[in-house]
Amino acid sequence: MKQFMDKDFMLGNETGRELFFQYAKDMPIFDWHCHLSPKEIWENKNYKNITQVWLGDDHYKWRVMRSCGVPEEKITGNADDYEKFQMWAKTMPLLVGNPLYHWTHLELKRYFNIDKLLDDTTADEIWNQTKSMLVKPELSPRGLIEQSNVVAVCTTDDPADSLKYHKKIREEGKMRTRILPAMRPDKAIHIGAPEYPDYIKELGKAANVNISTFDDLKQALKKRIDFFAEMGCLACDHAFETVPFQTAGPKQTETIFEKGRDGKKLSEEEIKTYETELMLFLASEYTKHNWVMEIHIGAVRNINRVMFAHLGPDTGYDTIGDGQNVKALACLLNAMDEKGILPKTILFNINPKDNYAFAALMNCFQSTEAKSKIQLGSAWWFLDHQFGIEAQLQAFAATGVLANFVGMVTDSRSFLSYPRHEYFRRILCNLIGSWVEDGKYPKNATYLKKIIQNISYKNAEKFFGLTINK
Amino acid sequence: MKQFMDKDFMLGNETGRELFFQYAKDMPIFDWHCHLSPKEIWENKNYKNITQVWLGDDHYKWRVMRSCGVPEEKITGNADDYEKFQMWAKTMPLLVGNPLYHWTHLELKRYFNIDKLLDDTTADEIWNQTKSMLVKPELSPRGLIEQSNVVAVCTTDDPADSLKYHKKIREEGKMRTRILPAMRPDKAIHIGAPEYPDYIKELGKAANVNISTFDDLKQALKKRIDFFAEMGCLACDHAFETVPFQTAGPKQTETIFEKGRDGKKLSEEEIKTYETELMLFLASEYTKHNWVMEIHIGAVRNINRVMFAHLGPDTGYDTIGDGQNVKALACLLNAMDEKGILPKTILFNINPKDNYAFAALMNCFQSTEAKSKIQLGSAWWFLDHQFGIEAQLQAFAATGVLANFVGMVTDSRSFLSYPRHEYFRRILCNLIGSWVEDGKYPKNATYLKKIIQNISYKNAEKFFGLTINK
Amino acid sequence: MKQFMDKDFMLGNETGRELFFQYAKDMPIFDWHCHLSPKEIWENKNYKNITQVWLGDDHYKWRVMRSCGVPEEKITGNADDYEKFQMWAKTMPLLVGNPLYHWTHLELKRYFNIDKLLDDTTADEIWNQTKSMLVKPELSPRGLIEQSNVVAVCTTDDPADSLKYHKKIREEGKMRTRILPAMRPDKAIHIGAPEYPDYIKELGKAANVNISTFDDLKQALKKRIDFFAEMGCLACDHAFETVPFQTAGPKQTETIFEKGRDGKKLSEEEIKTYETELMLFLASEYTKHNWVMEIHIGAVRNINRVMFAHLGPDTGYDTIGDGQNVKALACLLNAMDEKGILPKTILFNINPKDNYAFAALMNCFQSTEAKSKIQLGSAWWFLDHQFGIEAQLQAFAATGVLANFVGMVTDSRSFLSYPRHEYFRRILCNLIGSWVEDGKYPKNATYLKKIIQNISYKNAEKFFGLTINK
Repeated sequence: MKQFMDKDFMLGNETGRELFFQYAKDMPIFDWHCHLSPKEIWENKNYKNITQVWLGDDHYKWRVMRSCGVPEEKITGNADDYEKFQMWAKTMPLLVGNPLYHWTHLELKRYFNIDKLLDDTTADEIWNQTKSMLVKPELSPRGLIEQSNVVAVCTTDDPADSLKYHKKIREEGKMRTRILPAMRPDKAIHIGAPEYPDYIKELGKAANVNISTFDDLKQALKKRIDFFAEMGCLACDHAFETVPFQTAGPKQTETIFEKGRDGKKLSEEEIKTYETELMLFLASEYTKHNWVMEIHIGAVRNINRVMFAHLGPDTGYDTIGDGQNVKALACLLNAMDEKGILPKTILFNINPKDNYAFAALMNCFQSTEAKSKIQLGSAWWFLDHQFGIEAQLQAFAATGVLANFVGMVTDSRSFLSYPRHEYFRRILCNLIGSWVEDGKYPKNATYLKKIIQNISYKNAEKFFGLTINK
Repeated sequence: MKQFMDKDFMLGNETGRELFFQYAKDMPIFDWHCHLSPKEIWENKNYKNITQVWLGDDHYKWRVMRSCGVPEEKITGNADDYEKFQMWAKTMPLLVGNPLYHWTHLELKRYFNIDKLLDDTTADEIWNQTKSMLVKPELSPRGLIEQSNVVAVCTTDDPADSLKYHKKIREEGKMRTRILPAMRPDKAIHIGAPEYPDYIKELGKAANVNISTFDDLKQALKKRIDFFAEMGCLACDHAFETVPFQTAGPKQTETIFEKGRDGKKLSEEEIKTYETELMLFLASEYTKHNWVMEIHIGAVRNINRVMFAHLGPDTGYDTIGDGQNVKALACLLNAMDEKGILPKTILFNINPKDNYAFAALMNCFQSTEAKSKIQLGSAWWFLDHQFGIEAQLQAFAATGVLANFVGMVTDSRSFLSYPRHEYFRRILCNLIGSWVEDGKYPKNATYLKKIIQNISYKNAEKFFGLTINK
Repeated sequence: MKQFMDKDFMLGNETGRELFFQYAKDMPIFDWHCHLSPKEIWENKNYKNITQVWLGDDHYKWRVMRSCGVPEEKITGNADDYEKFQMWAKTMPLLVGNPLYHWTHLELKRYFNIDKLLDDTTADEIWNQTKSMLVKPELSPRGLIEQSNVVAVCTTDDPADSLKYHKKIREEGKMRTRILPAMRPDKAIHIGAPEYPDYIKELGKAANVNISTFDDLKQALKKRIDFFAEMGCLACDHAFETVPFQTAGPKQTETIFEKGRDGKKLSEEEIKTYETELMLFLASEYTKHNWVMEIHIGAVRNINRVMFAHLGPDTGYDTIGDGQNVKALACLLNAMDEKGILPKTILFNINPKDNYAFAALMNCFQSTEAKSKIQLGSAWWFLDHQFGIEAQLQAFAATGVLANFVGMVTDSRSFLSYPRHEYFRRILCNLIGSWVEDGKYPKNATYLKKIIQNISYKNAEKFFGLTINK
């Protein structure tokens, strides 16, 4: 019987412990996909209390609080910060089997040196202790990043974004951690969205291009891609509920674009066609810059319309889709491959049923350009816990070459989320350790060191072409 | 090495054993979804032999017997009861890894105090021993229910049912266990079925409404719902192969209804529209009575047409569908939510691949009305075994708040099925116990007692609003 | 901590070890589905080096080499055999969690008595040692088969194949192992393929039938089926990306056939109709000969068009589909069942998400003709490893009667693949052993011996009606 979250947390076997402590623990972090705010990093304001760090943005926590009947008032509403924290403390003991129980306690331990279990009996004490510590510089946004041994962070930025905070941070030159932009052109892709016509204008302004044709749009995106690349961008990201694939000639695409630009209703077929054609264009530009193309597949968003009207997107009303994606994805990757414009690609899959299908697919487009040029992304969002992580690792290993995996990302909006890398590494070391203990892989230190260090950090550094300020 | 089915059956760790024996074992049972016959409860006739209890209705057993090449004659046919039992006994040792092997032996143990393995060498002895015991009052239908510590049972009843046996049982006032009706309006919903026109007449008669319009139908259902509520009904249930979602105006719905009423062929689109509109109406009525709405999703029924022609429905020729349901289900729940008529809901998922998708979905519609107002139902039918149960618990926990789970149901036609609750609780305690032993949840008696007792019984009592005769 | 691949490899519990060594290990092999070349068996030429055995045909290995950035030149290209082997040796240590790591070392151990780990440091030595051994008669194709204790092999043969090598082998009468043809009429079924019109001519020639109508086609296939049956054929095999079901009258089928024969474009509906009607015809013929009908469902083939153009099919560019198959499969099996022409059937499922759906489906069509007349085939292709095998066994057991399972096949193009049977048996014994150790199944030698020996060999012998030269 192990104590809760002791030093061997998630490490159930001797080899796993050795792997973690000898090889994984001290590797730096490259957090190549997250939702941290460059503005907050630049401003580097300390938080007033733990509620602001934990509950300001975290829709994972909001969802479980709602599930426990906590009124919205005390989640995202006007209740005061202390009351909200109390609600969170009360929810905590109910989260048996939920990764939030682990993340929350890991964060208390790693950043506040607090070993207590959070519940309504300890809420007060923990509130006060964290409050008094949050004024310290090492608990500011930059402090948190730097004490977490983070070599580089890729934020998530719209092509129309000026990247002014990235510029300021770079010009100031004080951070040891590289803060890099990563492009997410979703608003330019999702032509069916009501905000598309306005967005196109915004993008045009940012690119200094008057966008009236599809060619103009491509021109504008190209300029923004070039600008992002100058700013150190290494990656881009895309979200699809279901992957589109429907090609068309330039005339047809032009017509569809113009309907979208004018806010006219488009058929599903037209939307798919436009999305496909634009992705093909984008891929060709990404390839020029040797960017990594990430695709997040399968989330169904904003399904609770009442709450969407109240709170907007990213507030806990998204879910896991069960659509079919293999054929479209195979065709899309192939179309890029045939044109010689298939970038290094990471496929993030939101439904665990699809791990094997996506893992097998990636291995149909490998090449000499990079080790496992096409990858299955780490377990993500609803899957970011032991079961989800192990299932992803297992499928990756069984159908491909896990040793080439680029590993974990926080995918988080919070500066306290770096222990998710530790969590991942513990699960990784435990899993590979259990294979070794069971005689399924040799206990060979040379092999194992390489595999663990590569997955923890080095593969990603190489794959993304990260140049570190050494 | 543990002995087969010893006292620690399914309990592989010390904490799990403590949880089961200290907290779970003696909790009462609330069997809020089953297919027991109120008539049989009322009549309370003893069974002549074990074949009548075990093999009269149990299509789970029939399926594995057929898989072993037993002729239908000796399963559902005219062979005598002893011969049928022999066939079952012969099948038993082949059922390695099948829950029937556990259920059968648990039932022998708990109700007949028989510890022997059932096979062809013990068939005789077990036949005789059970036969001599089955005359006792504690092995009558009521005896079985009451000795199983069942506080309340919800049967499954058609809206047109007079509930006369429920009335008799209640008026007699002798049972300690509450026998409550639960409404299953499937026949009113599945407008595409050949029996629909006749059923509508039957329903009209039961409600004393001449049903010629869709409004009449709603009126009739409303009357039946009110009547069921008076009779103590707390829940209703619905089966869909794939969840419908297609809204329409009242005129269009009326037209579709009239075609269905007259037995005319309907398109899939029309069927979906009618089903959606009727579900929206029903939900509004359920909400008035604060009923729990259960939806059983994904079973594909009666696929062997030859055997369906011989034996009719519920005879072992149903299977697990692989359809897509997330989008429709999200839209249906949202439509109810937008109108303020989303009842407390339990989603039963028949394909294990969909556990995560359904579990994530439920958390988009939580509210203050109940703890985990929307729930993922327990592992069901083809999934009611260790793997299926653990997969459901794991998905529920990882994406939501398992501590709020309303737990197990027998879903059975047999009065001997109560050990399925024990089976479930052992698996639950073993799983949570293993998390504690592995240091993934603290060994905190206060938390654990609450979680185990709540999932075993108390959550359901509260969720369904069960008032117990104390 | 177990040593890598020691004698108890994959056997993590005492009972599992007993089951394997006492019951499974020495059972003969009936490899009823593989892709061995009858020509190579007939010619029985020794291999020049290990590259020729391992890397000549094995697209599993090619895929992981490509994933490690090995250039195609050194995989399928003109690089010399030694260089290719070096690339494979270099790839090996990276394959943690991949079954190729186990298969490769098992093959070295069993056939070459080599216990070393293959990597770049041992490549030389292993190259030389295997080279010097490969000249021995026991390492020729026939030598490998016979030393592996293989009672019978079913190859995979086109209906137009003359089976001349099968004839020669039989007439020669020297092999202890029976080499039997098995029919794979895919080219006659997939009317949408560009090679269909030519194939029909080839088939006509083979059958000595001038095929100009659908009836002619059926006549030709019937003649080939009769011929294969004379040649000892016991089974046939079919591959579908998604299972077709669409019936039609003979006129409509004739029209579709003629369009296909003439190379005209067909709609998806027409293709499905033709495929369904032809499958119904074939099933009726198979039934006459009591053949086993295998269906491999879900692989999506040749998705990388650039590499397909270079290398053709079966070169590592296939993947796992995520289509829906349950309804069509249920209807197809039912249509055969209604006509009394449903053969013994084995459903191979390529996507692990579908294990339960397929396993449940099989039990809707069981009958007295054979024990588990409809079966879920063993874990296959992308799933042929511990996780995949256990998931298939678990689903089979939980929903049906695992004791009736016909077990493993190599499904391989290589004469070194027989240790996959050993691998499977170890996993099987370990799994059932763990159930026994955990008290979930009794430690009853009579039951267990039967179950293990039957799944390892005897069930298949009986199911396929194999007559052995004793």
